[in-house]
Amino acid sequence: MTRAQSPRNRTRIKDAMASAVPVDSLCVKGWVRTVRRSKDVAFLAVNDGSCFASLQVVLEASLPGFDELARIGTGACVEVTGALVASPAQGQSWELKAAAVGVLGDADPEYPLQKKRHSFEYLRTIAHLRPRSNTFGAVFRMRSSLSFAIHRFFQERGFLYVQTPIITANDCEGAGEMFRVTTLNPAKPPLVGGQVDWKEDFFGEATGLTVSGQLQAELFATAFGDVYTFGPTFRAENSNTSRHAAEFWMIEPEMAFADLAEDCRLGEDFIRYLVRYALDQCGEDLAFFNDHVEKGLIDKLEQVAEASFATMSYTEAVAALQKSGQSFEFPVEWGCDLQSEHERYLTEKVVGGPVFVTDYPKDIKAFYMRLNDDEKTVAAMDLLLPRVGEIIGGSQREERHDVLTRRMVECGIAPESLPWYLDIRRWGSCPHAGFGLGFERFLMYATGMENIRDLIPFPRTPGNAKF
Amino acid sequence: MTRAQSPRNRTRIKDAMASAVPVDSLCVKGWVRTVRRSKDVAFLAVNDGSCFASLQVVLEASLPGFDELARIGTGACVEVTGALVASPAQGQSWELKAAAVGVLGDADPEYPLQKKRHSFEYLRTIAHLRPRSNTFGAVFRMRSSLSFAIHRFFQERGFLYVQTPIITANDCEGAGEMFRVTTLNPAKPPLVGGQVDWKEDFFGEATGLTVSGQLQAELFATAFGDVYTFGPTFRAENSNTSRHAAEFWMIEPEMAFADLAEDCRLGEDFIRYLVRYALDQCGEDLAFFNDHVEKGLIDKLEQVAEASFATMSYTEAVAALQKSGQSFEFPVEWGCDLQSEHERYLTEKVVGGPVFVTDYPKDIKAFYMRLNDDEKTVAAMDLLLPRVGEIIGGSQREERHDVLTRRMVECGIAPESLPWYLDIRRWGSCPHAGFGLGFERFLMYATGMENIRDLIPFPRTPGNAKF
Repeated sequence: MTRAQSPRNRTRIKDAMASAVPVDSLCVKGWVRTVRRSKDVAFLAVNDGSCFASLQVVLEASLPGFDELARIGTGACVEVTGALVASPAQGQSWELKAAAVGVLGDADPEYPLQKKRHSFEYLRTIAHLRPRSNTFGAVFRMRSSLSFAIHRFFQERGFLYVQTPIITANDCEGAGEMFRVTTLNPAKPPLVGGQVDWKEDFFGEATGLTVSGQLQAELFATAFGDVYTFGPTFRAENSNTSRHAAEFWMIEPEMAFADLAEDCRLGEDFIRYLVRYALDQCGEDLAFFNDHVEKGLIDKLEQVAEASFATMSYTEAVAALQKSGQSFEFPVEWGCDLQSEHERYLTEKVVGGPVFVTDYPKDIKAFYMRLNDDEKTVAAMDLLLPRVGEIIGGSQREERHDVLTRRMVECGIAPESLPWYLDIRRWGSCPHAGFGLGFERFLMYATGMENIRDLIPFPRTPGNAKF
Repeated sequence: MTRAQSPRNRTRIKDAMASAVPVDSLCVKGWVRTVRRSKDVAFLAVNDGSCFASLQVVLEASLPGFDELARIGTGACVEVTGALVASPAQGQSWELKAAAVGVLGDADPEYPLQKKRHSFEYLRTIAHLRPRSNTFGAVFRMRSSLSFAIHRFFQERGFLYVQTPIITANDCEGAGEMFRVTTLNPAKPPLVGGQVDWKEDFFGEATGLTVSGQLQAELFATAFGDVYTFGPTFRAENSNTSRHAAEFWMIEPEMAFADLAEDCRLGEDFIRYLVRYALDQCGEDLAFFNDHVEKGLIDKLEQVAEASFATMSYTEAVAALQKSGQSFEFPVEWGCDLQSEHERYLTEKVVGGPVFVTDYPKDIKAFYMRLNDDEKTVAAMDLLLPRVGEIIGGSQREERHDVLTRRMVECGIAPESLPWYLDIRRWGSCPHAGFGLGFERFLMYATGMENIRDLIPFPRTPGNAKF
């Protein structure tokens, strides 16, 4: 086997597969998924990641070097020039009759991704190779497509994309534990009275990784009207669950001049748009998930794409749960936080579809949510979906300077720690609202994959920052 | 003044301005930029961030509450319902004849953004309000538009978007100093032999903020062919210059089956696409920058959009500099790193346009760049642009397992520290290439703004993590 010169114009397998007519000569490059051989012929399934399907490459015994080529290892990288011809095999329109095969990079039998089915747990240990598997090829193509769909949705609607800071000195956002970011000598930090002297640190104060871009997005909304973020956020929580990662991507739209009802409407439009985009653009990958990961996935998505989303208040939700006769692990009474079991009961049994629960007790929600006239609840909303529970959390924000200041004090947040946040209530304040969607949570929903580690290229969890 | 009820359908000022015909009644909401009044009439310039221009709102003395409304403060947030009519004033087609004005949020005379021109330094201290100024409105609209253009460029070409990790345990990327990420007790870290015991930390090892997603993007390129990253990257360097920030966004495409020439071609296509997109989509904002920030900006961009980019080797570049007769602060000899003064001389005087300099000495470049057959140079490239110097840096990557291992050892990097990076050279390796573009550096070029702090919503620099 010799290293072949690299012709400039390769054809992506996705494009070859979509050809309307046979092609006399084209060149594909990709990785060998499987090899089957007999005395006179060998078949290579070659995949280049451009689509789910592999292209069947036919090597005939007359091909120069046939004996050696037919021993190509699973995982090898090849370039094949040949004729695209109608395939006699079932389930594929085209195959490539090889005229020349070059091996760009060989693979020995120790290649970890052999044909047998591997567990997701095992594949996590080879996260650098798992994108070459069927499942993770499909996962990361969908992740990319839906990332673009997110930008398209907001840009089409005239929302401005704002990249909010990752490193932040705010520690009062209340969304969770933060990672510290520092350049101080780790073994011998400068101390003053037994405490670290953060004035000596890179930023001159204690800083950490952001848990949300919302507060900064609000600042931009009061200049540009409609804005959104899409970037990484962090939680330093020692949660080894299938739904928690230390690093994940979040989408946070924020709209000036919007109230809670408009916020819900945006969330509904957004979810339906993404689901419809996936159905239209990711059909081959979705078909795989539907067959092998979550039976009925496509029906589920079709239903959500067409559903009208219900709305009920927290107070109504509590009443519905109480009169359900259902026995829950966590008892339900007005004022309690809704648990996952409650959320799923509401969306699956009470409503039978997506539902916004609104107007939660102020004591279980964040300081920045707008106080309702009853002084007991705030203009918050959670969107609950069947099978997953909460997927969006949002609120109308408190735009009244005096009320916000009072709420900060009640919640133990010093108003002087967020002067800029109060400033936008001081000058040119306006009603505004927004929400957050955890991107990986949505991907779990859209693919049926059950562990958040399997939706993230290189996941970060307690004890794991590999790759 | 009373708080008005918020009508559901506001018209964005951008859309009002683009109207082809007068409109009997519409509602705009935005912030008052200026107020001019006489006895019988008052004019408010209202801006909602949807476009550069403000809409002139005309209040006539017959309007209920005229006396009070005419005293609205600069910076107040208003909603105005009225008739869109042809404007007799120069430079604007339409004005809004108010039928009803509601003040959503007032502003007192202490509002920091008064009509006078403020310095960029001052505006950095009020980064939460500067988006409401002409300059920063234009900056962040362009940032959003060009972010979308980046995704469009790659998605149209079938590149997969991969979100590479922010938190990383790799410390050998060599691109710069890293921030540490930790949850250990900062004042009393666990020590073993006087050193921090990172096993006790959140991830069980020492971690920091990524300086580049390239190594992980390479992993994805060997599964999907063509991929790109677009996300935040970090440098813990105490550089207080106008071109350095601790946190910035980078775009890093990576292509399997590509050599250095194809890498240059992608870089050229990419820059031209972004420049053309800005010219087509951001005309009003660019006109402002052209008039007030960099004279001749639009001509410069038009030239780059049409230019063919030259290529010269580092060896040719050194020879050209040596025979130039120019006296440089830093002397030029083969083997030295090119300084900014050299780069600018090459692109501005030697070539008179964009130029790729290729094939640098291996000793001044990173371990992962492909060793050329001369064993002295590597297949690296930098794209230099007039006025800014280097804007893109890239290379063909070393795909040969044995050569890469040798280069790592030569560069003092333990091969066992990056087993996964070597693995993709072990199984199914292939030629591949990519580059990095600092997004803010490109924005500086596209807007003419001279300080990187003015292209980032909330910049992080030594001593500053405000907002």
